[in-house]
Amino acid sequence: MSDDTVTGTLVRHFGAGVRQLRKERGWSQERLAENSNLNRSYIGEIERGCVIASLETVEKLAVALQLTPSALLTRGESLSRLSGA
Amino acid sequence: MSDDTVTGTLVRHFGAGVRQLRKERGWSQERLAENSNLNRSYIGEIERGCVIASLETVEKLAVALQLTPSALLTRGESLSRLSGA
Repeated sequence: MSDDTVTGTLVRHFGAGVRQLRKERGWSQERLAENSNLNRSYIGEIERGCVIASLETVEKLAVALQLTPSALLTRGESLSRLSGA
Repeated sequence: MSDDTVTGTLVRHFGAGVRQLRKERGWSQERLAENSNLNRSYIGEIERGCVIASLETVEKLAVALQLTPSALLTRGESLSRLSGA
């Protein structure tokens, strides 16, 4: 597995984790955008793994979703393990 | 505590966590730079909390330091709790 594959996988699964946590709270992308002070279309791009979030963005999402940044990453890593990627 | 303070704290403590983990391995910044395919001066900026790393950079550092991205963030969060910030 190349480094590129690993990185792409992290970003994609991070986005899937954000989407899963958002849906568990019954929130729309608009609501998460408001709570995190991020743009709604940017939230969509993050969830689809189209953009690479910065630690600042990870922090904003974690605060909005009320968990630690490491717990937010853990969700993505769990999805990564489940998919075998 | 404002959002800016929270974010600044995460970035600063993330850098301190990277430095601590690097030193535990007895590595120079040069060695971590080589292992992570990052620039040495960029490693220095990350450790000092001068730059906001992307998830891609977090992943590269985690792979080099042989832990998961979430575990890398956890180290910074522990330092954050210890300092009370």
